[in-house]
Amino acid sequence: MGEVLRGSLIIGQSGGPTAVINASAYGVIRTALDADCITKVYGAHYGIKGVLADRLYIMDEEDREDLDKLMYTPSSALGSCRYKMKDPDVDDTDYKRILEIFKKYDVRYFCYNGGNDSMDTCNKISKYMRRVGYNCRIMGVPKTIDNDLYGTDHCPGFGSAAKYIATSVMEVARDTVVYDMGVVTIIECMGRHAGWLTAAAALANSGIHCCDYIYLPERDFDMEQFLKDVERCYKDKGNCIVAVSEGIHYADGSFVSEAKTSATDGFGHAQLGGLAAMLAAIVKDRLGVKTRGIELSLLQRCAAHCASKTDIEEAFEAGKAAVEAMLAGETDKMVGFECERSAALDGSGYICRTKLFPLDMVANYEKKVPQEWINEAGNDVLGGFINYAMPLIQGETPMQKVNGLPDFAVLKRVFA
Amino acid sequence: MGEVLRGSLIIGQSGGPTAVINASAYGVIRTALDADCITKVYGAHYGIKGVLADRLYIMDEEDREDLDKLMYTPSSALGSCRYKMKDPDVDDTDYKRILEIFKKYDVRYFCYNGGNDSMDTCNKISKYMRRVGYNCRIMGVPKTIDNDLYGTDHCPGFGSAAKYIATSVMEVARDTVVYDMGVVTIIECMGRHAGWLTAAAALANSGIHCCDYIYLPERDFDMEQFLKDVERCYKDKGNCIVAVSEGIHYADGSFVSEAKTSATDGFGHAQLGGLAAMLAAIVKDRLGVKTRGIELSLLQRCAAHCASKTDIEEAFEAGKAAVEAMLAGETDKMVGFECERSAALDGSGYICRTKLFPLDMVANYEKKVPQEWINEAGNDVLGGFINYAMPLIQGETPMQKVNGLPDFAVLKRVFA
Repeated sequence: MGEVLRGSLIIGQSGGPTAVINASAYGVIRTALDADCITKVYGAHYGIKGVLADRLYIMDEEDREDLDKLMYTPSSALGSCRYKMKDPDVDDTDYKRILEIFKKYDVRYFCYNGGNDSMDTCNKISKYMRRVGYNCRIMGVPKTIDNDLYGTDHCPGFGSAAKYIATSVMEVARDTVVYDMGVVTIIECMGRHAGWLTAAAALANSGIHCCDYIYLPERDFDMEQFLKDVERCYKDKGNCIVAVSEGIHYADGSFVSEAKTSATDGFGHAQLGGLAAMLAAIVKDRLGVKTRGIELSLLQRCAAHCASKTDIEEAFEAGKAAVEAMLAGETDKMVGFECERSAALDGSGYICRTKLFPLDMVANYEKKVPQEWINEAGNDVLGGFINYAMPLIQGETPMQKVNGLPDFAVLKRVFA
Repeated sequence: MGEVLRGSLIIGQSGGPTAVINASAYGVIRTALDADCITKVYGAHYGIKGVLADRLYIMDEEDREDLDKLMYTPSSALGSCRYKMKDPDVDDTDYKRILEIFKKYDVRYFCYNGGNDSMDTCNKISKYMRRVGYNCRIMGVPKTIDNDLYGTDHCPGFGSAAKYIATSVMEVARDTVVYDMGVVTIIECMGRHAGWLTAAAALANSGIHCCDYIYLPERDFDMEQFLKDVERCYKDKGNCIVAVSEGIHYADGSFVSEAKTSATDGFGHAQLGGLAAMLAAIVKDRLGVKTRGIELSLLQRCAAHCASKTDIEEAFEAGKAAVEAMLAGETDKMVGFECERSAALDGSGYICRTKLFPLDMVANYEKKVPQEWINEAGNDVLGGFINYAMPLIQGETPMQKVNGLPDFAVLKRVFA
């Protein structure tokens, strides 16, 4: 147990939002508001940029009822940023400014809620504060639909996005088989370097089979093999549903979505429609069948109405654990999860505990889908992934509705 | 009250599916299975094509539990078609074949569940059977997310699609304001000739304002005015969210999505990305701001997980009323709705009754969004539309989940 450290806390959100990032923020805010030695709770407007700009919301001024709604409100309620901190040895301007703000508001606790880059930011600030001898505790809280953070079993935000993707694939699959005339449907999921989200399409097969192929950036993409796969499936069952990651790439590393002059596409308009539309056009052109491209776009990361209860609760717990760890004297860590699983599809036997990971270990490393969870042909995922992901999508959001629509939090946003 | 007519019933589904089309089918099937004088209940595989091909499912063979799930299962469970019946005076081959099948299975009741074209099919079959003196009763059951059927207050399927669109716009709006750098987001909704679905984006504004402009096919689209609208909004609030109908067109009637050489776009790649991507590219090019195009695609018509309880129940009632009307001797009609509304956003005071409309009146006519519900500038809808649509999106689907995912009906599909 560390010394009792009195002072205020800043929580910031960073990177792309998720359906549950505010549940983590609320885990931090609620726990901090309830802690005796935390004198004031500030929310940074637009992440670390809000700290640098001295734009801090006073969370103590918000009504409890509004804060409670953060549990079910998607996307960074405090505002987010994508701001890369310089190396303090090269340029310490930002760090000096952060120290100034920390001193101005007597900040002794800092929580940063984000992905890889945010953990890097946390790490740099933490090292700097230690070097200049400023007594404060710093903790990273993970979030990313991409699920690519090292160390932790999984990341808050992934489960909800996975649930939305699997649900949508099931629904689209129903829609595409209603005619006696077949169609090849290409569904594009996010994930530039890691295929976790796209793999989630396989969860749609846990009832009746509906997703035929899954292509991840963990394997090189071969357009000719892809066309053969699709053709075979279409001939066999008169239909084909494919999930692709936006980040699939050829063996030379070039993104399929950016290939402008390849012999197989010859369109060169990828910037207009994205990968799904492009692949749909190629399949139509080459196989002469009806096609449709569907890009899940932002919908997959902000669909709070379809969030996983498990994910919401874990996101809150991660934020809560971060504050509790700091109160206990911890610093320079990221909260992550350590889990146990049975093989049950309904998530029974699943146990998830928070655990602290050194920031050094987490920052700037992307965790991919393990090769042993991908089939040999590289066009589907295996039971290992299903077993891993099913517990994360269990349970429905308890989000309230008003007039048939989501009742999202609206904060007063009182600036310090 | 008509004479008691003993015989079997065929239910067919036609046209594009919706989230609740199976609820209507189940209204027909359940009521027919429970009716003493209906000897057998058949489902036509792929609509009228299934009748022509003698491909009929025996609904009596299905388990009650599976049939019950039809209430919450999207997309035509029996299979659908887009088959235009010829004028029987020109070519009566199909009609003779239908009569043959009706006689073979002693069909005295025929329900067809679909949009404009399906009502036309119903009407033609009905007239033919009357002319040849075959005693049967024929009833249309409406469905279409497009909400463009004449006579009826609204169409089953629209409320659920509207609820999904409004929910998604609210969520995307949250997502697009998280950075301090603005973005113009274009959301494309279905509706080639009528703007009902796109107008539903306005329901997202019933809480806090989030959709800035709405462009419907009921007004001519002016690209320069659109760019001025977007620029003004972006300058004022640093962000802009626009909903557009896939069917917006220039004053000369040409679809914006198909304009390949207009001075304002100069891209000519509409076929690849659709309208949203195209408009996003034009805005980016002309205004130099970050943009994103989101096409709601099939998701909006099959999102049973976000269906409106009101819509589900009304869809069932429409099917039920169709069979009850036929049992009472009615024929050659479509079941529609007649409604009363208060101005309450939560739908209180809303009363919906089924009513029969002559098929002649309904077939082949598209109902548009009334001009008095569109603002003068043609870039938003007014209170009249909100008042009309809010009751239709009330209530959540009671759909059960298994392992965190929808528990959709899987029929045994026993052929006659």
